Amino acid sequence: MATLIASENFSPIEDAEVLRKSVKGWGTDEKAIISILGHRNAAQRKQIRLAYEQSYQEDLLKRLESELSGDFEKAVYRWILDPADRDAVLAHVAIKKSGCNYNVIIEIATILSPEELFAVRKAYQVRYKHSLEEDLAAHTTGDIRKLLVALVTAYRYDGGEINAKLAKSEADILHDAIKDKAFNHDEIIRILSTRSKTQLMATFNRYRDDHKISISKTLLEEGADDLQKALHVVIRCLNDHKKYFEKVLRNGIRRVGTDEDALTRVIVTRAERDLKDIKEVYYKKNSVPLEHAVAKDTSGDYKDFLLTLLGKE
Amino acid sequence: MATLIASENFSPIEDAEVLRKSVKGWGTDEKAIISILGHRNAAQRKQIRLAYEQSYQEDLLKRLESELSGDFEKAVYRWILDPADRDAVLAHVAIKKSGCNYNVIIEIATILSPEELFAVRKAYQVRYKHSLEEDLAAHTTGDIRKLLVALVTAYRYDGGEINAKLAKSEADILHDAIKDKAFNHDEIIRILSTRSKTQLMATFNRYRDDHKISISKTLLEEGADDLQKALHVVIRCLNDHKKYFEKVLRNGIRRVGTDEDALTRVIVTRAERDLKDIKEVYYKKNSVPLEHAVAKDTSGDYKDFLLTLLGKE
Repeated sequence: MATLIASENFSPIEDAEVLRKSVKGWGTDEKAIISILGHRNAAQRKQIRLAYEQSYQEDLLKRLESELSGDFEKAVYRWILDPADRDAVLAHVAIKKSGCNYNVIIEIATILSPEELFAVRKAYQVRYKHSLEEDLAAHTTGDIRKLLVALVTAYRYDGGEINAKLAKSEADILHDAIKDKAFNHDEIIRILSTRSKTQLMATFNRYRDDHKISISKTLLEEGADDLQKALHVVIRCLNDHKKYFEKVLRNGIRRVGTDEDALTRVIVTRAERDLKDIKEVYYKKNSVPLEHAVAKDTSGDYKDFLLTLLGKE
Repeated sequence: MATLIASENFSPIEDAEVLRKSVKGWGTDEKAIISILGHRNAAQRKQIRLAYEQSYQEDLLKRLESELSGDFEKAVYRWILDPADRDAVLAHVAIKKSGCNYNVIIEIATILSPEELFAVRKAYQVRYKHSLEEDLAAHTTGDIRKLLVALVTAYRYDGGEINAKLAKSEADILHDAIKDKAFNHDEIIRILSTRSKTQLMATFNRYRDDHKISISKTLLEEGADDLQKALHVVIRCLNDHKKYFEKVLRNGIRRVGTDEDALTRVIVTRAERDLKDIKEVYYKKNSVPLEHAVAKDTSGDYKDFLLTLLGKE
């Protein structure tokens, strides 16, 4: 379930007017921006951008970028974008960052539905005049590249069929490769990047039943290299992305200085999808409501905006 | 240019009636089938199938399969299908064949536009409840697998921009790898599977200018293994697929016993696209019109059907 409380009766033209007033002249009315954009879903935000462009012959996004700053600006910018376009931006930022942020790429490649992932690849090309895999492959090397490119280029079958025999044989293949620490084994990449998610769940369950430990725990050890860490993230994202995001939020908040990028990313990308579920997982694990934790670690307009997306009335 | 002469005024219901008569009762009227289906484009054939299904509660395709036989049946079956669905069938047959027919996979992955290739991946899932890359990866191994999976999962940028510096540096990368016979070099696969076709043309041209030999010719040598041969096909398909198809036709016709699969594949898949251009290339290379060569090497309804698709009035 989503946390976003989108207004049911809304007029894109009126919203555009209020936003125009809030950015015009001296000073910016951040409260108005939050109260409007923090209560509009993706389709509504799209209409507002369009109405704003038509009424004032300027791009709302660009205007907000120039009026706002810091973490608040980043969060508003990411929030306004269409989900596929936003993920294209997140992927691009991750790729261009020195030492590519694998986790963001893995999240996009494994958590989105096959159709959503393809929409991101399309959006990426419109924006950057390159394919996503082209830029990714040019900025990574070796085994990590093999894994990440295979994941982002996947178009998995999305059906619910399970082949139990295959789950057993591929659980064994994964187990043997992991036991031998052959994390770059072609078969690991083949299985994780081509099988349907339902089939992979069956494979991971079989792994746990046959080997008395979850595949995710097997991969989690001191001294793991980048590839092993990446595989661990892949399996966590495929297996239970809500638990995975809870951990991202927890780490982001706990860190000295808060990891705003991670905080913004999870809240902005999940507010319209399943942030309510992630909040529940968070509460179970931390005995503190996520809103309280976020409120404690952030401030100002950025804090208000995140709390609005988290469902504060 | 296409060779197919599609009828402009057509009624799917009347066509369905004629086809019904041609398959009903004793004997089959192959001439009627050819004269209708051999003059209908993909959109028209789709409507005919639909009209037939609605009028007679049976699948035209299945009925034709049971009435026809041999190469003629195969050609009609492939022709009736939607192009994306047909390519999904061709890919599936190629994958399941012992020793996977790489060339068919390479043709689909490199000659189709990025959107068309994606449509084939969608059609493949609808038909086979697996992803194309999933089945391909499960039926191949090693370097060939790396190459083929990278090619079929690509969604290349389709724009016309050329980065000349990149063309130079990647022509050098390709040249160095080929010189060292490192045909399985990750960089070869990266470049061939992620760069846009326009960019690759520039890279291949640069290769030829700098190294005084075309990359395609460099790869063509006695004793080449499967991977080297596959790379050669990839580059030919990317570079000039009409010349490539001319060669496929020539080899198919010249072979003792004619390679009907290849003949059918090229004629059926290109009749609505660019078979006229391929015919021209064929004539230039062989000084014999393609129709004559086909007529000499085939017979009966199969021959009549191919010649109709080749544009015989």
